[in-house]
Amino acid sequence: MAKRKAAILGSSGMIGQRFTHMLDAHPYFEVVAYCASDRSNGKKLADVWKLSDVEMNPRIRKETIRATNPAALEKQGVEIVFSGLPSDVAGPVEDECAEHGMAVFSNAASHRMEHDTPILIPEINPDHLASVEVQKKRRKNGGFIITNANCSVTGLALGLKPLVDEFGFREINVATYQALSGAGYPGVASLDILGNVLPWIKDEEEKMTAEGRKILGSYKNGRFVDSPVNIQACCARVNVRDGHLEAVFIRDKNMPDAKSIARTLADFRAKPQKLKLPSAPDRPIIVRKEQNRPQPLLDANAGTPDRAKGMALTVGRIRVDKDCLKFYLLSHNTIRGGAGGSVLNAELAYKEGLI
Amino acid sequence: MAKRKAAILGSSGMIGQRFTHMLDAHPYFEVVAYCASDRSNGKKLADVWKLSDVEMNPRIRKETIRATNPAALEKQGVEIVFSGLPSDVAGPVEDECAEHGMAVFSNAASHRMEHDTPILIPEINPDHLASVEVQKKRRKNGGFIITNANCSVTGLALGLKPLVDEFGFREINVATYQALSGAGYPGVASLDILGNVLPWIKDEEEKMTAEGRKILGSYKNGRFVDSPVNIQACCARVNVRDGHLEAVFIRDKNMPDAKSIARTLADFRAKPQKLKLPSAPDRPIIVRKEQNRPQPLLDANAGTPDRAKGMALTVGRIRVDKDCLKFYLLSHNTIRGGAGGSVLNAELAYKEGLI
Amino acid sequence: MAKRKAAILGSSGMIGQRFTHMLDAHPYFEVVAYCASDRSNGKKLADVWKLSDVEMNPRIRKETIRATNPAALEKQGVEIVFSGLPSDVAGPVEDECAEHGMAVFSNAASHRMEHDTPILIPEINPDHLASVEVQKKRRKNGGFIITNANCSVTGLALGLKPLVDEFGFREINVATYQALSGAGYPGVASLDILGNVLPWIKDEEEKMTAEGRKILGSYKNGRFVDSPVNIQACCARVNVRDGHLEAVFIRDKNMPDAKSIARTLADFRAKPQKLKLPSAPDRPIIVRKEQNRPQPLLDANAGTPDRAKGMALTVGRIRVDKDCLKFYLLSHNTIRGGAGGSVLNAELAYKEGLI
Amino acid sequence: MAKRKAAILGSSGMIGQRFTHMLDAHPYFEVVAYCASDRSNGKKLADVWKLSDVEMNPRIRKETIRATNPAALEKQGVEIVFSGLPSDVAGPVEDECAEHGMAVFSNAASHRMEHDTPILIPEINPDHLASVEVQKKRRKNGGFIITNANCSVTGLALGLKPLVDEFGFREINVATYQALSGAGYPGVASLDILGNVLPWIKDEEEKMTAEGRKILGSYKNGRFVDSPVNIQACCARVNVRDGHLEAVFIRDKNMPDAKSIARTLADFRAKPQKLKLPSAPDRPIIVRKEQNRPQPLLDANAGTPDRAKGMALTVGRIRVDKDCLKFYLLSHNTIRGGAGGSVLNAELAYKEGLI
Repeated sequence: MAKRKAAILGSSGMIGQRFTHMLDAHPYFEVVAYCASDRSNGKKLADVWKLSDVEMNPRIRKETIRATNPAALEKQGVEIVFSGLPSDVAGPVEDECAEHGMAVFSNAASHRMEHDTPILIPEINPDHLASVEVQKKRRKNGGFIITNANCSVTGLALGLKPLVDEFGFREINVATYQALSGAGYPGVASLDILGNVLPWIKDEEEKMTAEGRKILGSYKNGRFVDSPVNIQACCARVNVRDGHLEAVFIRDKNMPDAKSIARTLADFRAKPQKLKLPSAPDRPIIVRKEQNRPQPLLDANAGTPDRAKGMALTVGRIRVDKDCLKFYLLSHNTIRGGAGGSVLNAELAYKEGLI
Repeated sequence: MAKRKAAILGSSGMIGQRFTHMLDAHPYFEVVAYCASDRSNGKKLADVWKLSDVEMNPRIRKETIRATNPAALEKQGVEIVFSGLPSDVAGPVEDECAEHGMAVFSNAASHRMEHDTPILIPEINPDHLASVEVQKKRRKNGGFIITNANCSVTGLALGLKPLVDEFGFREINVATYQALSGAGYPGVASLDILGNVLPWIKDEEEKMTAEGRKILGSYKNGRFVDSPVNIQACCARVNVRDGHLEAVFIRDKNMPDAKSIARTLADFRAKPQKLKLPSAPDRPIIVRKEQNRPQPLLDANAGTPDRAKGMALTVGRIRVDKDCLKFYLLSHNTIRGGAGGSVLNAELAYKEGLI
Repeated sequence: MAKRKAAILGSSGMIGQRFTHMLDAHPYFEVVAYCASDRSNGKKLADVWKLSDVEMNPRIRKETIRATNPAALEKQGVEIVFSGLPSDVAGPVEDECAEHGMAVFSNAASHRMEHDTPILIPEINPDHLASVEVQKKRRKNGGFIITNANCSVTGLALGLKPLVDEFGFREINVATYQALSGAGYPGVASLDILGNVLPWIKDEEEKMTAEGRKILGSYKNGRFVDSPVNIQACCARVNVRDGHLEAVFIRDKNMPDAKSIARTLADFRAKPQKLKLPSAPDRPIIVRKEQNRPQPLLDANAGTPDRAKGMALTVGRIRVDKDCLKFYLLSHNTIRGGAGGSVLNAELAYKEGLI
Repeated sequence: MAKRKAAILGSSGMIGQRFTHMLDAHPYFEVVAYCASDRSNGKKLADVWKLSDVEMNPRIRKETIRATNPAALEKQGVEIVFSGLPSDVAGPVEDECAEHGMAVFSNAASHRMEHDTPILIPEINPDHLASVEVQKKRRKNGGFIITNANCSVTGLALGLKPLVDEFGFREINVATYQALSGAGYPGVASLDILGNVLPWIKDEEEKMTAEGRKILGSYKNGRFVDSPVNIQACCARVNVRDGHLEAVFIRDKNMPDAKSIARTLADFRAKPQKLKLPSAPDRPIIVRKEQNRPQPLLDANAGTPDRAKGMALTVGRIRVDKDCLKFYLLSHNTIRGGAGGSVLNAELAYKEGLI
């Protein structure tokens, strides 16, 4: 069966480049257009490449970036759009793509909180896909937008999912140690972060609370119902390239022991694993027993098989003391928490016949 | 009145050098002996200097380090010992000094949890000094040991003190972003921390819980009574030179608003301020209103007057949401949380006539 | 005698803030206007402060930045302008100030290579001041511009001066390890420099060659005559806050021994020392004998007295092997190689009666 | 044909781990023993793994480290020993292995300057292999030692080889920006290098001069004859994980233009390429035209095919001005300049029938 034609928006940025890398030789999708702002129009992908950890396929090096033009994409037969646009410009462009009938898989915050647009994490809320049917009715030509979550809530929600389901936890405190790539490029000034920690990331804590509730909530009778989970976050930037580390605290009167927690996390499997989606990690949550893991440097790229590198969550240092569960978790912010999240969303939509 | 003769133990290490710097031209104490292990015997202080942020007084550069010998110190007339020894060797050496009749102000963990030895923070528990009278009876020659707290619990306890007193908070979660200097020298290998975070510091989380309870507790009828405060910590090392940053979460059914919290913290004054101890900061807790503070790079040295640089706690980003209070705090781990803590303890003991 | 009224241009940038710090309580000059681009108009200095190593005088914190307006400055009685403007905008603004009769001391490259404008380093070429008389004739109202050198050539030229004078060296190779602050703020992206070295700095190598020749050359019969010194440079950026380190190689058939080189450097004194200019270091070149110095972290702020901190050059590891002299040198790029250079230039001009 | 049995010495260190990685599934050699000091005896390779950039083969994770015992290795049928021992212990252990009849491929400095032991770089001096015949006579049982060069001279010598052959250059100045992994583990203390450069590496500059002369020299009539090339080096450590960057200056009266230099470097092929040795890069020297390359972060792993990653030298910014040629070069210090160098040496020896 022929692959579906896809385009990447924001292909000159960090997320866009992760899309480019992950969609190279993808079994379902074929990228036929690399789009970015007018400023990059005509440049080669090689000229704007920012990722230091992956080698560019020589064929991709020569691909030409062009200005974003939804109408032209439609004419070219593009059915699927992966958007790595920054949130301040993503809104109208993604809308325009959807109005042209395309399925938009977006990494931007612009549409996340809309009433008929899911924040999809296939291991957590595949049933939220149903909201898209409502959305399609509102839009012309049958297009729609599916968003992935903020990079710091993605890993947290994935780690919380089996625990909330099994033990009913409600009160979550989380402090983050977030990587530089989360701020895009050029992002954080080196003078600000050298030998320093920045204890504030614009809108991040609010997103963790609001998006977490929607992601972990349900979709019933045509509307999203928030989860009662109360996430309270302190978000900081550290001098790390990739991988958001998070210290999680959960208080509960009936706290199970650490071993039960670890088993529940390690045993977790969900729809992407059952469907064997190409970018789904065999084990979505890897539990490490070493006392000094997870570490961004060592664990950001966790995940097997190869196509799922950076898609697994790593959890470590699970401890329970006086009704308080504590652990560290780590996920790759521009793969699982960025481009990879949207790729997995598109794979799910494809398998479910939505695209 | 003549200054009291003092010695520094561990003077070749990071804490020892902070002692050297802070005791230079001190109004109460005069350092007459710089001691370290046999390995450093005969070296000049300038040869082992590790602090990059303070200039050595030229006179001090030439001071000779000698092997640690408590009997010789007593003979020399030393009354006060400041110990920057690593915890694995501090125990017996500090005991020996105390048995020779000296007052030991220690930064090491060895004696902190003993039943007649205080973990003294003058702003919090000056009444714990009374335990020393019990200790003196147990020891020969009237010597004793007074410890300061672990570097990461020091700042936290100082921030909690006015809040616990005023609002009765009990359940504290804290995630730390700790500086390299907390691990001493050579400490953390550069290959381990470059572009990385290490989510584990040996014994640190346990110390925060146990010491926090003792520090914030009371001393009644000749014994320490633990505070009911339950501190649960996740401790991580980040690539920062000085200054432990901490994300604090407090849940309480009757949470006051953020403004009341800020005022309570900013208005806090205690015995060291009343006594005008030389190393006491005018304002022990500085509340910052900027949304991106405190930062280790900018706030580690907070504190006025000059002699109190690095002795003030900085608190910022005070927020209250759904019964949950969140803020960041920062204190200098080798000044307030290290040498400076012991210097302030000695100043209190001096003013109280204990030495 | 009343202090001369001065203004700072570019006062929201790294160099501008060094000017602000160095001119605080200056014996000759009083800053009456802090100027920057329209974007910063109305902000307080505290709101834009970027320097992490110096504390702001509380009075200065509250100073208001205003848009740059040469005519208004003249009206206000400003006689002296310190320019920390970026080179891409400095040219016409500095010209306009000079045309309004003010003496401009500039850190920008715009005017450095003009035939009647000196690149002044008071220890090296105080006689180049004479060129200003020519310049004044060309301009209206008796204003003029005096530039300081590029930050990486400043330290090198200072180190070469006594050697070239004494031994006639000609062929110089230099590789630099340049600090982040040299690129201004926001400057280098953290993602580019974390765990990396950038082996290229725009125009830097060319400036080292061309400016070096002019600085070390003479001013005769109303024109600049280039020095025959041939500086060949490789310039790289490293992840360091302040202080340009440089590896210098000099080949010469009659190479003296290392001891003679060290003595010649250490003994060097020049006009600023004789005139006791306030920002002149007692010893312009500090020769270190330790085998692992100079280091940016430890030596960038070298210089006594206090007002001359960051104004001294540090040289170390002087070695001679097979006609090849090698050493490392270090100077503070935004003090001696930036604002401090211009302040010293203004002090010389003041003492010489030019302003 | 059966693979030759090999052992790795120093398998718990950085170089030893590179050996482990590079020899995994090697076509000629099969590692049957992972040796290290008594301290590591019995540990699993996974427990001591330090490399953050390569994933351990799960089978290798479980390999047990054992104490180094040359007699036992011989008994086990080991013919080839790869030594990643630190220089302070390598000497006698490597000798003992050779005396037991094994071929030792060593990364240590201990034997490099011996009169019958080559410092082999197969692209440069494959004829130096002849010296081994002399060495074998001196030793019992036909064993011998072949060394690879110091990590910083390896890349330089490779870059100089075609230029010296073609243009007869003699006077070389080189300043290095060396990576942390060159100092082994734990190596450089984080407090020393954070935001800093260390302008001294013990013995490094002397090695560059002496080894460079031997490597680029000839082997005639049973003895090594030094090359007249005069390398003068300034060696510094920067906060980079892997990859030594070097700024090279060559002065010559008959300097060709930059284009000729670039072509000579890019066209260079040598014996390893002709023999298609498994770890030989197709192109030993990659010339980059971008103005900001090579960079450690982007170019340390240069080399194709996959088995040759980190084995290619990258050269960039080739410029000629006034008889002075300047360029930057970069090579991976623990692959080409470490384990990979020895693996390539063993491959050459194998193909030449020496083992």
